[in-house]
Amino acid sequence: MSDSPSVPITLEGSSVLHQMFRFDWEAWKKLSNEDQRKIQEEAASLFGKWENSSAESARNQSALFSLIGHKGDLIFVHFRESFTELNRVELELAQTGLNAFLTPQHSYLSVVELGLYESSAKTYADLAGKGFTPSSAEWNAGIQEVIQRQTVAMEKRLFPAIPPAKYLCFYPMDRRRGEAKNWYKETIEERQRMMHEHGMIGRRYADSVRQIITGSIGFDDWEWGVDLFAEDPIVFKKLIYEMRFDEVSAVYALFGQFFIGVRVQAADLAQWFGGKLV
Amino acid sequence: MSDSPSVPITLEGSSVLHQMFRFDWEAWKKLSNEDQRKIQEEAASLFGKWENSSAESARNQSALFSLIGHKGDLIFVHFRESFTELNRVELELAQTGLNAFLTPQHSYLSVVELGLYESSAKTYADLAGKGFTPSSAEWNAGIQEVIQRQTVAMEKRLFPAIPPAKYLCFYPMDRRRGEAKNWYKETIEERQRMMHEHGMIGRRYADSVRQIITGSIGFDDWEWGVDLFAEDPIVFKKLIYEMRFDEVSAVYALFGQFFIGVRVQAADLAQWFGGKLV
Amino acid sequence: MSDSPSVPITLEGSSVLHQMFRFDWEAWKKLSNEDQRKIQEEAASLFGKWENSSAESARNQSALFSLIGHKGDLIFVHFRESFTELNRVELELAQTGLNAFLTPQHSYLSVVELGLYESSAKTYADLAGKGFTPSSAEWNAGIQEVIQRQTVAMEKRLFPAIPPAKYLCFYPMDRRRGEAKNWYKETIEERQRMMHEHGMIGRRYADSVRQIITGSIGFDDWEWGVDLFAEDPIVFKKLIYEMRFDEVSAVYALFGQFFIGVRVQAADLAQWFGGKLV
Amino acid sequence: MSDSPSVPITLEGSSVLHQMFRFDWEAWKKLSNEDQRKIQEEAASLFGKWENSSAESARNQSALFSLIGHKGDLIFVHFRESFTELNRVELELAQTGLNAFLTPQHSYLSVVELGLYESSAKTYADLAGKGFTPSSAEWNAGIQEVIQRQTVAMEKRLFPAIPPAKYLCFYPMDRRRGEAKNWYKETIEERQRMMHEHGMIGRRYADSVRQIITGSIGFDDWEWGVDLFAEDPIVFKKLIYEMRFDEVSAVYALFGQFFIGVRVQAADLAQWFGGKLV
Amino acid sequence: MSDSPSVPITLEGSSVLHQMFRFDWEAWKKLSNEDQRKIQEEAASLFGKWENSSAESARNQSALFSLIGHKGDLIFVHFRESFTELNRVELELAQTGLNAFLTPQHSYLSVVELGLYESSAKTYADLAGKGFTPSSAEWNAGIQEVIQRQTVAMEKRLFPAIPPAKYLCFYPMDRRRGEAKNWYKETIEERQRMMHEHGMIGRRYADSVRQIITGSIGFDDWEWGVDLFAEDPIVFKKLIYEMRFDEVSAVYALFGQFFIGVRVQAADLAQWFGGKLV
Repeated sequence: MSDSPSVPITLEGSSVLHQMFRFDWEAWKKLSNEDQRKIQEEAASLFGKWENSSAESARNQSALFSLIGHKGDLIFVHFRESFTELNRVELELAQTGLNAFLTPQHSYLSVVELGLYESSAKTYADLAGKGFTPSSAEWNAGIQEVIQRQTVAMEKRLFPAIPPAKYLCFYPMDRRRGEAKNWYKETIEERQRMMHEHGMIGRRYADSVRQIITGSIGFDDWEWGVDLFAEDPIVFKKLIYEMRFDEVSAVYALFGQFFIGVRVQAADLAQWFGGKLV
Repeated sequence: MSDSPSVPITLEGSSVLHQMFRFDWEAWKKLSNEDQRKIQEEAASLFGKWENSSAESARNQSALFSLIGHKGDLIFVHFRESFTELNRVELELAQTGLNAFLTPQHSYLSVVELGLYESSAKTYADLAGKGFTPSSAEWNAGIQEVIQRQTVAMEKRLFPAIPPAKYLCFYPMDRRRGEAKNWYKETIEERQRMMHEHGMIGRRYADSVRQIITGSIGFDDWEWGVDLFAEDPIVFKKLIYEMRFDEVSAVYALFGQFFIGVRVQAADLAQWFGGKLV
Repeated sequence: MSDSPSVPITLEGSSVLHQMFRFDWEAWKKLSNEDQRKIQEEAASLFGKWENSSAESARNQSALFSLIGHKGDLIFVHFRESFTELNRVELELAQTGLNAFLTPQHSYLSVVELGLYESSAKTYADLAGKGFTPSSAEWNAGIQEVIQRQTVAMEKRLFPAIPPAKYLCFYPMDRRRGEAKNWYKETIEERQRMMHEHGMIGRRYADSVRQIITGSIGFDDWEWGVDLFAEDPIVFKKLIYEMRFDEVSAVYALFGQFFIGVRVQAADLAQWFGGKLV
Repeated sequence: MSDSPSVPITLEGSSVLHQMFRFDWEAWKKLSNEDQRKIQEEAASLFGKWENSSAESARNQSALFSLIGHKGDLIFVHFRESFTELNRVELELAQTGLNAFLTPQHSYLSVVELGLYESSAKTYADLAGKGFTPSSAEWNAGIQEVIQRQTVAMEKRLFPAIPPAKYLCFYPMDRRRGEAKNWYKETIEERQRMMHEHGMIGRRYADSVRQIITGSIGFDDWEWGVDLFAEDPIVFKKLIYEMRFDEVSAVYALFGQFFIGVRVQAADLAQWFGGKLV
Repeated sequence: MSDSPSVPITLEGSSVLHQMFRFDWEAWKKLSNEDQRKIQEEAASLFGKWENSSAESARNQSALFSLIGHKGDLIFVHFRESFTELNRVELELAQTGLNAFLTPQHSYLSVVELGLYESSAKTYADLAGKGFTPSSAEWNAGIQEVIQRQTVAMEKRLFPAIPPAKYLCFYPMDRRRGEAKNWYKETIEERQRMMHEHGMIGRRYADSVRQIITGSIGFDDWEWGVDLFAEDPIVFKKLIYEMRFDEVSAVYALFGQFFIGVRVQAADLAQWFGGKLV
């Protein structure tokens, strides 16, 4: 359907919800040991089920992070097959005993997205070379063919397992639509060139950072959400600082809030409730 | 009255209120089964009455959606014949047992609007061609004639039934009035050209998305509210992303918050209160 | 004192306070019928006294509106002779039984203002023609003479009664002081020309909308507050949309939040407390 | 130390804290008369001590105002010899019985500042004329000499008593640092010229308005805080509106929130707690 | 890894968390003396352990400040070896009795950063002079050599002890990425020149202000956090005002909120809980 030559072809994968909560320590401490134990077991069991992933491509997986700073105490990251499934996760959480201690602070709704700038330029050129016009049946068929082929080829990136790294960095972002500098007024060739240069930086950090890009146009208040996973959080800073000087970020990137979490396994939840980070 | 050649003729239809609420699950769980049942029945009965629509053009209809993310838990969308009727809906809801569990988070007040850019240009040219001057009695009569004829012709679009689709996407928006790029300083011909191009994209998505545009200049904090209805939420992203590259959106569109909901029928409310999405 | 040729002469009239409150329906419902009745009677009596106005020019009058949407449930609009009197109104309300159910959400403090662009230009030209220099005793005397004469002539507009219309639209606004477009850098002649054109639109709507402009420079967070009163709220949209295309609004107007209320007479307050709009 | 020819010499005087509070009328009304009386007496005694000033230059003085609108119910303005003393005031207030009824809404931390634009230009020219270079020992000594001399001469303005006027207007402000218009890129001569013109307007209002400028660069979220004191609040509007057209305000001034209060003497506090303004 | 000639080499040291809390005086006063004493002792003991630092370079140290104004009552500043350790501090604090009286208002997460603009320019020139290309193995090795050498040389600045000064000033900041003025589009030579000039001002204040710069790109909502420590808070204003006129600040600096605190030693905490500042 995305048949305008300005619009890059995108593939969509897992539906993703980030939930940031404040945890009410004072109410928690007032519980009896027995009541604490029950809630811990229920929560650990639920997250244990959700974090379990038997394949590299995992369509229903959640992870839990201990959030640093006043933006909240916990981040839950959920990957699911649909928005309906994400809403079911929210409703299921709301029924748990844990819910009484959680106050929602933020959230982010998006879907895993792969923007095929390189394929798009090539495909549009091919189709135009064959004499097809945008939005014609032949043009659309040519694009659908690319989408289907790439969706199969990219399945593991479209429905990724949550990387097991120790630290999470999440932030939303926009491409600038300023009065003078406007990403959406650049030609697709210019955008492809800038995104390529941008991607090269990411590639040099591939050993130390795993990156999952999600799209949120039409779903949430920014255009994209970025999740970075690493064993050493300093590389988040190194990577993002270096990218800030490439053209697409220097001129066109606008950033929302940044969230940093430390991974907590479901099996270690009981310790976290006792104030300990394993 | 709208007789300046710069101002497109608009038609107004149903009065619309969106209400976004957080639901207090912890207070709800403390109720006895009996008390829960009474509140569920009252709410299901009220929404059942409101969602019922015997015609395609429905002047008094409401729908309910389960909201994803921390912006709230429920969205109620009300179409009524007047603002007074909308206020009556609010007051009626406030008297229900359900109200004790709802905290208002957001809302949006607007009226269904059809902007007649094509007719306006043609009408203004005709009237000027007849030698009438803007604001003269003849000019105004010519415009009133168009408004009355189109209001009859467009009745189903002015007083639409709420589409039965599974997903809702709602967001408010403005046209930019920047120091360099200012929608309201463009000629009506330029605006008509850009809106036409914009509309062509929407038309290509007509099979998978139903769109209702409401105007809120003078009523709420943005100029327009947009409701999209679809069975697959990915098309919200596809449509809005593609539109972001057309001129009117790339240069002149400013967006507020986005809300995504999953339709809940009145008959399924009891399940939702039990944490289940049908 | 306003003796610079750049500054238009303004007249000031009634002191005005808008108060927007959320009403706590759940606490209200918990009251006994007897306690509800007492509070209703006290409130109705207080507002009954305040809404009473025996003359067209009313120096101490209040009105009450049922507010649509989540910005609050009630708007109180108070016109008084001084800021001290407005503060007394606030303190008197705080002592009532009703106050326990009200949470302040917004407010706006301003004074009725008439900006005499036409007279200013004429007066400044006259005084300069007589050879007087700005800020000289003769110049200031000439301006004071205009102010005193106009204050008498305009008394009904400076100390207006609150129009009895069904709907209220209130919003604050600024004149833009951008880096490129700056209202305060335009000559007084240019501003007069634009304000004249702006006023002509308002005049065409005079049959269906009553407008009261209040000034709030130095008093609140925007420069002006606008109150519109009409029997049909659609005219608020028609008027403001049409104005948005005139030069002064298209280029120089910045808008705050919009509030829409439905008039509730003091005599009908008891019904409102029962969830009914008369 | 401020030895760059771009930076005007400033003198600093009293440390100033503005505190804006909401007062909990409902909790207050629940107190017994006896408990109310005790808290009133304690508060009146504390503020009585603080408002007492035996000299025109008063280094430790507070004043209390009844705030109009929803931004709060009370403003406390404290002038002290140091930030430590201001923090002691906060801690002392926190220990009173009154504190249970106060919720902090805003505050502002600053020091009385006199910007010596005229002296700076003259001094820099003199020192340069003597062949000294900025930051040299001779240059710094020349500036220190000016500071010491002026600090003595200006003592009453640096450590002012709080004017006894009926109305207070407080607002914070910045000088614009835009991409095109940037106060900090203007030459000191240009800034001196604009500040001189700005000051001339203030001087014409000197009979009806007392103005205290405080600097807050490095202390709070805006660069300056402005306190105006007058018997008639209309002059706040007249003064600020007229200034808005002078070059330094029209182009370079950015304003925060405005707060309007009515003076309450410590001796009249008991009446205020009873809902009466003397 | 930071091998682009545009990106200055940076060194990272201690992980830093600022926590700003409101203290609930009313709940505190309701405690028995015995309960107050227990909580004071626990808090004093914890902070006593944390503030203790036997070396100039201290890898695990905290300090506590009494915050002026409504932004909170207390600031805790923690320097640790990792983000995990910072999260452990948060969790440990949450388990104390003190936690019941603290409401988080703000926080800031960052790492001590030294930006080596001078070394970067020299190193990039050397490596290019040797014929190496950016991102080549030789280039990267050359940069790593600089990082390792400087990390050893700068250890005391990378892992600083918290200065013992009486006053703290903390604020976050960004470098502007505007449509016309964009720090990240300036050449590294231009940036080096501007940062050098900026650093010269700081050096002139070195006797009276200690400055610790932390980087937060990828960690929190601004790019850098600045901590200033001084015996006299007026120098915060003098320093920041003077810097505001240098090119890098005048054109490229954007500032967040400012926080001013008065140091409280762990040993003096009991007095603070009694409303006294030693």
